[in-house]
Amino acid sequence: MLLGGSGEATASGGIDPSRMYYYAFVVNTIPVGVLGASGYAGRELCSLLMQHPRFNLAFATAKDQRGDEVKAGSRHVEFVDGAAADLSSAALIFSALPHGTSREWVDRATAAGARVVDLSADLRPGNGTKGIPYGLPELDRSGIAGADVVANPGCYPTAILLALAPLIRQGLVAAGAQIVINASSGVTGAGNAPRRDMLFAEVSGDYRAYGVGNCHRHLAEMRSSIAAIGGDASLLFTPHLLPVARGILATLAVPLVRDLANPLRPFLEAYANEPLIEVVAEPPSLRDVVHRSVARISAVAPSGLDRPMLLVFSAIDNLLKGAAGQAVQNANIMFGLPETMGVPS
Amino acid sequence: MLLGGSGEATASGGIDPSRMYYYAFVVNTIPVGVLGASGYAGRELCSLLMQHPRFNLAFATAKDQRGDEVKAGSRHVEFVDGAAADLSSAALIFSALPHGTSREWVDRATAAGARVVDLSADLRPGNGTKGIPYGLPELDRSGIAGADVVANPGCYPTAILLALAPLIRQGLVAAGAQIVINASSGVTGAGNAPRRDMLFAEVSGDYRAYGVGNCHRHLAEMRSSIAAIGGDASLLFTPHLLPVARGILATLAVPLVRDLANPLRPFLEAYANEPLIEVVAEPPSLRDVVHRSVARISAVAPSGLDRPMLLVFSAIDNLLKGAAGQAVQNANIMFGLPETMGVPS
Amino acid sequence: MLLGGSGEATASGGIDPSRMYYYAFVVNTIPVGVLGASGYAGRELCSLLMQHPRFNLAFATAKDQRGDEVKAGSRHVEFVDGAAADLSSAALIFSALPHGTSREWVDRATAAGARVVDLSADLRPGNGTKGIPYGLPELDRSGIAGADVVANPGCYPTAILLALAPLIRQGLVAAGAQIVINASSGVTGAGNAPRRDMLFAEVSGDYRAYGVGNCHRHLAEMRSSIAAIGGDASLLFTPHLLPVARGILATLAVPLVRDLANPLRPFLEAYANEPLIEVVAEPPSLRDVVHRSVARISAVAPSGLDRPMLLVFSAIDNLLKGAAGQAVQNANIMFGLPETMGVPS
Amino acid sequence: MLLGGSGEATASGGIDPSRMYYYAFVVNTIPVGVLGASGYAGRELCSLLMQHPRFNLAFATAKDQRGDEVKAGSRHVEFVDGAAADLSSAALIFSALPHGTSREWVDRATAAGARVVDLSADLRPGNGTKGIPYGLPELDRSGIAGADVVANPGCYPTAILLALAPLIRQGLVAAGAQIVINASSGVTGAGNAPRRDMLFAEVSGDYRAYGVGNCHRHLAEMRSSIAAIGGDASLLFTPHLLPVARGILATLAVPLVRDLANPLRPFLEAYANEPLIEVVAEPPSLRDVVHRSVARISAVAPSGLDRPMLLVFSAIDNLLKGAAGQAVQNANIMFGLPETMGVPS
Repeated sequence: MLLGGSGEATASGGIDPSRMYYYAFVVNTIPVGVLGASGYAGRELCSLLMQHPRFNLAFATAKDQRGDEVKAGSRHVEFVDGAAADLSSAALIFSALPHGTSREWVDRATAAGARVVDLSADLRPGNGTKGIPYGLPELDRSGIAGADVVANPGCYPTAILLALAPLIRQGLVAAGAQIVINASSGVTGAGNAPRRDMLFAEVSGDYRAYGVGNCHRHLAEMRSSIAAIGGDASLLFTPHLLPVARGILATLAVPLVRDLANPLRPFLEAYANEPLIEVVAEPPSLRDVVHRSVARISAVAPSGLDRPMLLVFSAIDNLLKGAAGQAVQNANIMFGLPETMGVPS
Repeated sequence: MLLGGSGEATASGGIDPSRMYYYAFVVNTIPVGVLGASGYAGRELCSLLMQHPRFNLAFATAKDQRGDEVKAGSRHVEFVDGAAADLSSAALIFSALPHGTSREWVDRATAAGARVVDLSADLRPGNGTKGIPYGLPELDRSGIAGADVVANPGCYPTAILLALAPLIRQGLVAAGAQIVINASSGVTGAGNAPRRDMLFAEVSGDYRAYGVGNCHRHLAEMRSSIAAIGGDASLLFTPHLLPVARGILATLAVPLVRDLANPLRPFLEAYANEPLIEVVAEPPSLRDVVHRSVARISAVAPSGLDRPMLLVFSAIDNLLKGAAGQAVQNANIMFGLPETMGVPS
Repeated sequence: MLLGGSGEATASGGIDPSRMYYYAFVVNTIPVGVLGASGYAGRELCSLLMQHPRFNLAFATAKDQRGDEVKAGSRHVEFVDGAAADLSSAALIFSALPHGTSREWVDRATAAGARVVDLSADLRPGNGTKGIPYGLPELDRSGIAGADVVANPGCYPTAILLALAPLIRQGLVAAGAQIVINASSGVTGAGNAPRRDMLFAEVSGDYRAYGVGNCHRHLAEMRSSIAAIGGDASLLFTPHLLPVARGILATLAVPLVRDLANPLRPFLEAYANEPLIEVVAEPPSLRDVVHRSVARISAVAPSGLDRPMLLVFSAIDNLLKGAAGQAVQNANIMFGLPETMGVPS
Repeated sequence: MLLGGSGEATASGGIDPSRMYYYAFVVNTIPVGVLGASGYAGRELCSLLMQHPRFNLAFATAKDQRGDEVKAGSRHVEFVDGAAADLSSAALIFSALPHGTSREWVDRATAAGARVVDLSADLRPGNGTKGIPYGLPELDRSGIAGADVVANPGCYPTAILLALAPLIRQGLVAAGAQIVINASSGVTGAGNAPRRDMLFAEVSGDYRAYGVGNCHRHLAEMRSSIAAIGGDASLLFTPHLLPVARGILATLAVPLVRDLANPLRPFLEAYANEPLIEVVAEPPSLRDVVHRSVARISAVAPSGLDRPMLLVFSAIDNLLKGAAGQAVQNANIMFGLPETMGVPS
């Protein structure tokens, strides 16, 4: 088009500049597919891909909900059965299949010649898999660009690791420190399979902890990631269920080696050039981040304690920075596209 | 039977047993008043008092909302201006006035000959006042019965102290331990004064921390109470705002001196005979406790840590066990009535 | 006094008046059972019965959720399989079984000698059944007291018939009038079976009509009941689903034969002595009626029209006046007890 | 830029096509201002304008909330006092001032040489103003393009007129028909001024009618608009308040001159080429339309009636198609831009 000048858009004289915005650069579109597209993260992912300037959603698979559609503006895609999808037709495949069932499809996809972003927990650090790059770009971009397969992080680990990494890397966390993490998530984190305990009449007006006793499956992922950046700390992680559709807020109490003059400084330094991390003075709120693929982080030094501690807050949209948005961010890196292309910020 | 003391109702004589329930014992009713009745706690209190078998709500005062009514079934009471209330007409006055303005009215009420339950923070431990019994009966009933003035605890302290006291008293908390407390409250905790940040459109779908940095005014109350029972621990307390009308859930990470074979045991022992404390195996949920003046407590030993820790959960209705219900419980004790009379459990 | 029939309690003798309230009249308790107790209406019903002064909940059955419990204060009942319930052990059986499956159990219960309140639609007017009294006491109490089986009304019909009956009976509705009824219900009206479209993440923030096109199964029930009181009107009924747990609000546009000087008058006259109907000047709100077994009704004459119309509002709690509360009200009538005994108002 | 080839973007060979999307056509940006920007509609409008390809937000004014900011991604604008805004610096001014105070500022803005989209009710039909084009493009685009001032429709009228106009224009509504309209709106329709009755604790779980008796100020606007397209019908309009942040659903019962073989046909024909109107088979839901500037309309012929009636459903986002989105749509038309430019669909 532009290069050859043959397309509809030509930059010749006499053009009406008010129409120019509408020149679409539909060059080199990259065919992509989504496996397990009918969950909340899968639907969000389809919606992002349908509006992405360079990725073209070739297929989206679902099991129970095949035949359903997901829409983005005037565009829509219909879910097909996994068996009906031609994996080789896609240059990139996103797997949003349930934990435990994804790994097999990742193998099929790579065998068919596609690169993969896996949103399940199957290939993440701590799950017995080695050598798969972990797709948390703000922690480590190096392995993502060249990878054939990227393990997209869990929602809780995304919020929590982004809050901890700057402190660990800057040597501020005491060796062997006991870090206490409370986090609260909206219900889309539990998926859209019909469950009595997720009915509106059950969740409305309620709030409770779950997975208590430090046994959440995301712990292995967090511990491995912390070890990978040299951290030596013990995590006590307690998730809670919020009566909201989306969003995660994590509140972390972190023992430090010394008091900080400016509690925000480690984060401002670490994330100075990150377009999707917002370091703010006020504690973040879910409303600041929902429908956006960003993490918003704040920190404050608690008063009245007899040892150095930092209170850190980290908020994300569990479906975007915690899942689909980050998956697109990783895919952009893999394909040499601008990292935030098609990622709502 | 009553007169003859036989102790059981019998359907002898020509009496119609189906009507028996309707004999009302309207003897010795005790006239009570409520100051600052138009807030959420005040309204809840009026509602309880209008249904109480022995207290008779003589007046309820309000400022901006005078003329308004609160109803309970077919009964209702109209708010009058504070100046219009005859304090001496009440044997007992509840003050639900705002913090800072209550103390003056407590003095007026006692001068008028009334006993007082003060729901404000003005007379609570840690606020520079000494000798006023603290109305958390499950911790210490001794001073309440004979008191002329009782300081009704704050909502957060109620939930948190009931979770900590058994551990402290049984010597299970390490000296100088750093206890990390995250708590989340429904919006009625913020009162019903018109505020933009409490509008439905602002709170719906949101969740955030507030009063961060260990500076919440309830901290002094908690520290004093812990010291009073011999505790030597440091508290890091972070409150959060939930998009629900009522309820508080506190999640506490408590360093222990040793691991516990049964994490529930300290609570089962301490509260074996308490009618308004429920010790449960599953982490409590707001729905378990709202509209009830109880505290529901659970505990679990977290796995994977290298030191003894206990995770404790405590849930209450902030307007009942955290305010109005506890106020009635205290009033019952003060007047020699059964402690749970008219207290919804 | 009781035995002697003096009719008032006196605090003579050595009795401690402060304890008097606690004499329980546990005479002649009536054993009752609940079939299909695990739904929202069934659970609410169990909760009411466990606190009822005269009914004693002997058993409660459930299928999928057997083994579950429902609690009311310190009391609780465990759901058993229907086959395990001894129907003959109950003087009264409530059936909260699903529509279509209830009739068979009603027959078994009556064969076992029990009287029945059927909360399903199976025996209601318009469903091909004749001679079963319709349990909307404010419309017609006559047949209920002596009945062996009572058909408890649907939630929408309760709200709507209470709004229409006074107008019809007083001859105010034009013959052949087209009445337009919009009603909105909380999600408990849809039951607690797991359904994707009832998940919190689906219902939160949403509102929509359903069963559109005048095809709701409650229409036959309403039409029969209106015909039974001499009405000759056409109903256009559109239900909507609200993002709230409980409550129904119906808004009715009713063509009248003439303008009314006082739009409330027909209702004030019809319901002057009804303890569970509240006729009010302001349009009722769900919050006015939830957790109460009452109907709150208001009416206003719309301005700017060229024909006589009345706008009527009717609000109930779908689980109480629309189901379980009304079932207890009917049961009280059947057993000669005070009509509001154990019915929250 | 492109035309002169001097800019950063040149379409020479060797270019990396993956970067092409990022050529920005920042030509001929049009400076715009927003008056009364701190309300919900004003904030939404600022957010849209900050992301609009051709409009450039030069200033946004507010009174109580001046100094506040509204953000869209990495961009933000600070509210200034109205007196501080240079009206002549804008080619287009949006007024989102309160009803009654807007007209004066519209005059000032036009005197300063700016064109105006007025979101208040001040200049809408039925309010005594003549000759101001009504900005509901799907009804009549003719006057908008050349107008200096456009009256942006109210939220309820937008939903309702889009549902009625096709029926009226196609002669399907009986002369003198009594149309019954029930509509429900999210709380942002009430603005963000602090009000006790709009607190989360008041609205949560509630639903009620307001402005009852056919006296809502939007009625004049609807009646005038209907008369303008030749309608002769009587409206009975009852608004309700929903416990959701945003969205309006209107349910209309419309007497027709005859039954329709296909109830959707009038709408499919009228809106065949409208990019922002969605005619659908299923009754629309708020979730279908929130965060989108579209109207979704459905219709069904009710069964069991003895006269021709149509039930029509119309759903919009009150802040987008009902306010800010439609304002941008009108502005696009006024300035010869593509009608949906920067309008989320």
